[in-house]
Amino acid sequence: MRLSRFHLATLKEVPADAEIVSHRLMLRAGMIRKLAAGIYTWLPLGLRVLRKVEAIVRDEMNRAGALEVLASMVVPAELWQESGRYNKYGPELLRLKDRHQRDFVLGPTHEEVITDLVRRDIRSYRQLPINFYQIQTKFRDEIRPRFGVMRGREFLMKDSYSFHLDADDLEREYQNMRETYKRIFTRVGVDFRIVKADTGAIGGDRSEEFQVLAQSGEDQLAVSDTSDYAANIEVAETGPAAARAAAKSTLAKVATPTQKTCEEVAALLDIPLATTLKLIVVKASEGDGDLVALAVRGDHTLNAVKAAKHPRVASPMTLATEAEIRGAFGCEPGFLGPVGAKIPVIADYAADALADFVCGANEAGFHLTGANWVRDAAAPATADLRNAVEGDASPDGHGKLRLVRGIEVGQIFQNGPLYTKALGVTVLDEAGKELTPTAGCYGIGVTRTVAAVIEQCHDDAGIVWPDAIAPWRVAICMINPKNDAKVNAAADSLYAELTARGIDTALDDRGLRPGAMFADIELIGIPHRIVVSERGLAAGTFEYRARGETENRQLNHEQLLELLA
Amino acid sequence: MRLSRFHLATLKEVPADAEIVSHRLMLRAGMIRKLAAGIYTWLPLGLRVLRKVEAIVRDEMNRAGALEVLASMVVPAELWQESGRYNKYGPELLRLKDRHQRDFVLGPTHEEVITDLVRRDIRSYRQLPINFYQIQTKFRDEIRPRFGVMRGREFLMKDSYSFHLDADDLEREYQNMRETYKRIFTRVGVDFRIVKADTGAIGGDRSEEFQVLAQSGEDQLAVSDTSDYAANIEVAETGPAAARAAAKSTLAKVATPTQKTCEEVAALLDIPLATTLKLIVVKASEGDGDLVALAVRGDHTLNAVKAAKHPRVASPMTLATEAEIRGAFGCEPGFLGPVGAKIPVIADYAADALADFVCGANEAGFHLTGANWVRDAAAPATADLRNAVEGDASPDGHGKLRLVRGIEVGQIFQNGPLYTKALGVTVLDEAGKELTPTAGCYGIGVTRTVAAVIEQCHDDAGIVWPDAIAPWRVAICMINPKNDAKVNAAADSLYAELTARGIDTALDDRGLRPGAMFADIELIGIPHRIVVSERGLAAGTFEYRARGETENRQLNHEQLLELLA
Repeated sequence: MRLSRFHLATLKEVPADAEIVSHRLMLRAGMIRKLAAGIYTWLPLGLRVLRKVEAIVRDEMNRAGALEVLASMVVPAELWQESGRYNKYGPELLRLKDRHQRDFVLGPTHEEVITDLVRRDIRSYRQLPINFYQIQTKFRDEIRPRFGVMRGREFLMKDSYSFHLDADDLEREYQNMRETYKRIFTRVGVDFRIVKADTGAIGGDRSEEFQVLAQSGEDQLAVSDTSDYAANIEVAETGPAAARAAAKSTLAKVATPTQKTCEEVAALLDIPLATTLKLIVVKASEGDGDLVALAVRGDHTLNAVKAAKHPRVASPMTLATEAEIRGAFGCEPGFLGPVGAKIPVIADYAADALADFVCGANEAGFHLTGANWVRDAAAPATADLRNAVEGDASPDGHGKLRLVRGIEVGQIFQNGPLYTKALGVTVLDEAGKELTPTAGCYGIGVTRTVAAVIEQCHDDAGIVWPDAIAPWRVAICMINPKNDAKVNAAADSLYAELTARGIDTALDDRGLRPGAMFADIELIGIPHRIVVSERGLAAGTFEYRARGETENRQLNHEQLLELLA
Repeated sequence: MRLSRFHLATLKEVPADAEIVSHRLMLRAGMIRKLAAGIYTWLPLGLRVLRKVEAIVRDEMNRAGALEVLASMVVPAELWQESGRYNKYGPELLRLKDRHQRDFVLGPTHEEVITDLVRRDIRSYRQLPINFYQIQTKFRDEIRPRFGVMRGREFLMKDSYSFHLDADDLEREYQNMRETYKRIFTRVGVDFRIVKADTGAIGGDRSEEFQVLAQSGEDQLAVSDTSDYAANIEVAETGPAAARAAAKSTLAKVATPTQKTCEEVAALLDIPLATTLKLIVVKASEGDGDLVALAVRGDHTLNAVKAAKHPRVASPMTLATEAEIRGAFGCEPGFLGPVGAKIPVIADYAADALADFVCGANEAGFHLTGANWVRDAAAPATADLRNAVEGDASPDGHGKLRLVRGIEVGQIFQNGPLYTKALGVTVLDEAGKELTPTAGCYGIGVTRTVAAVIEQCHDDAGIVWPDAIAPWRVAICMINPKNDAKVNAAADSLYAELTARGIDTALDDRGLRPGAMFADIELIGIPHRIVVSERGLAAGTFEYRARGETENRQLNHEQLLELLA
């Protein structure tokens, strides 16, 4: 591509509303332009990268034996009603009506559509297993779209859905997809981790996420410092702690007139935060009274995903209202404690291990010190309810947990028969008996992968693309092309030669000053820069610099071709 | 692709609600499945074809120097309000609200979005000309979707938008796109015509359509039998006819008690239909009274597109109500005529040339015979108001018009400054003065092209794909593969060889009986069929048949490779 004929639209200013580096760099490099909140137009430069990621995904999905289909973005509401997600999914599901007032949704994911396809198209066990995938535009009506395409509303996604006669075959395909995803992100050229994950709004039995490691990541990950254990903080297990110590102190009431948080109480009493206990009151699951109190150590945070999975807690986890709390405890929030509590208490393992702890007195303006389970408060039920913290023992028994941040770019699920049952999918088995297939689903955020790579691969000058997804692998920069026929001819000839060898090359024939030209080429992240100048031609060399390096190398024609081969 | 690992989902039954052959064959071949009215899922077989058409379009657009972008499908209503199309476009434009009750549309076309991009990204004459294109999902909420993907609601479209400093440069790019489209449809392998067209809802100065010739086409085209004149019937000109003859008959009133149409009156009076005249009463354009009557010969039909362009007729053309007609003529519709008419009459050229004609008497139950312009009715304004008919003189002066049917697969427009003005786009010219660019737009219905090719290329056995867009160019059919290791090995080896040579090949290893296997391969339209059988292997030959032919050929390995090269 000759850049004089391209729309290279780099910006000097740092856009004001862009909070993270990938958003800033995608705008500055001229990869995207905002059309509305969370909705972007991909400019030619950005689309080149997006299409390269898409091509790698397609290539590896085909190699894995998955079959590409293309469903619609506008999906009849009936299918979502059948699965039960039409009401459950919340306002991220954009609902609309057509001109005949029929209900539709913009598909944020396509379990229903593909399961319905299988219901109608697959009749016999002979047609299974099958894995349908698509690379398609999705819409999720995020309440607060931000970070550019990282958390946009309309985006490109690879989603696939596999169907199987039994759980073993699902496990086989799950592993096949897991390996395929590893190949995809390895080819893309990004550092990633596979972490255990919650199944969330998709549902199902088992899930892992593919996370690109980056400080700006929205996801907190817990990884072992010695083993390959890695999990999203949402599901990273924390086990029973050391046994509870014997009570030593006597129970005493202390005035804490304005101290409502554990931090404030610990500061007032000058005690470690880890000796305080907080109660979070939530709605109980049906048939278990109205409310239940979750006890967590003051220095720990409640994990809502874990709490929602507890059989006695309503799912999704819903905090009690202040009125409900006053009704149950006779006291305002901020002074609650398990001593004398009239609703069931479930304690996180670490909270259960406390002795002589500090908690609310269930009386406004007062806390208790020297509180102990059994002696002062009924022994609670126990569960894993908190977020793992740095230094926790790794759940696999090897090493300690470190917390790192990641950007989720892919997720794989074993849904089991969740959707096939809901939609009444059956196939005939070898004996002619009807059988409900079990299923998996597998997603990659194609759009988001582009941004995630930038979060990981950039420097002060701009983007540092891995070769595989760079808009062009090579840029040939012409010095003073308008006034130098030799430079022109040599650059043209090199451009033709590289292009003929299948090397994706941009020829910067815009006639900019070298400084401005180099700044652009660095900003847009081209991995290999070649400068063609009068001086170099006289010496028989080209000036070469790799994007990550700071030194130029003078290479002759042969050396250059060898390096780029 | 080994078909045992593919989802080949052919159907024996002819689907009941499929009215045209491409719809029937796409369902029967397992290319698409219906999800809702006008909304389809592309199965793997269909998607292979769609992607091949898409690849040809992309390749030729890139070669033409256009730059690919990707806009969103969900578009803020503001942009459509700015252009004025938000209210004008009608219910085909699907309007929706996001969770914050902000107005959006699903883009049926993207003039506004790309013009807005240019408004923000292009500042200088140096950045022009530019041609942005995308291959993207569109949505048009058709009132009555039908014919499968031919007139669907969600579909894949290539749309492009070019911007220029002046009309000459727009004309240059228009011709560039015209040539590009010719290359695209030639490569696709379909017989097409370029016809003059109306600019319709897009607007602008000049437009041509690319029409695939097919009997089932929704569009009527007028083509010269000797020159290359071709136009959509909507715009095919009909010129002034021979001069009006002198009046011979006297005006007489005849009873036509129940005869309201020209056909009925001509039959009653036993006269040629071409000697009758009908009035169509429509709303006048503003400032020209309320109504105007359009006079057309009884054997001709009014052309609503031409009528709407007449300066005295409201656009779009709107028929008067029965009450309005009674008010103006004192008579019910069916008995109207120009004699004594109190509203302006505009006559089509051919109607104006009539002498001694028959028309309504403006009195229920009566018509007039021997009526003449000037003598009996005021000389009307004249205009080209009718549809061309078979045998009309070609407007270019060469030969006569034939009427054929076509399927519109592409359209190119010179919009001029229509959208750039509406959105206030300016660039600085060489002198630093602000200038409004002029623009063109160019569309290809990628989805529809697939269906159009089938309408033109099929026989009783199924689809007959051109090589370039066939799901596979070659099918290797294995006879009795489960029980014949030799056949298996030979077919595998041939499959590997063809694939290595870059020939897109399907290996039918499903183990079907030959009859069922051949029927499938013919139905899905594979251009080249090779049968590997025990008998052939013994004779050292492969049985070859081209999809269009009825005879098999016995070819040896070398002959086969030569034929497929």
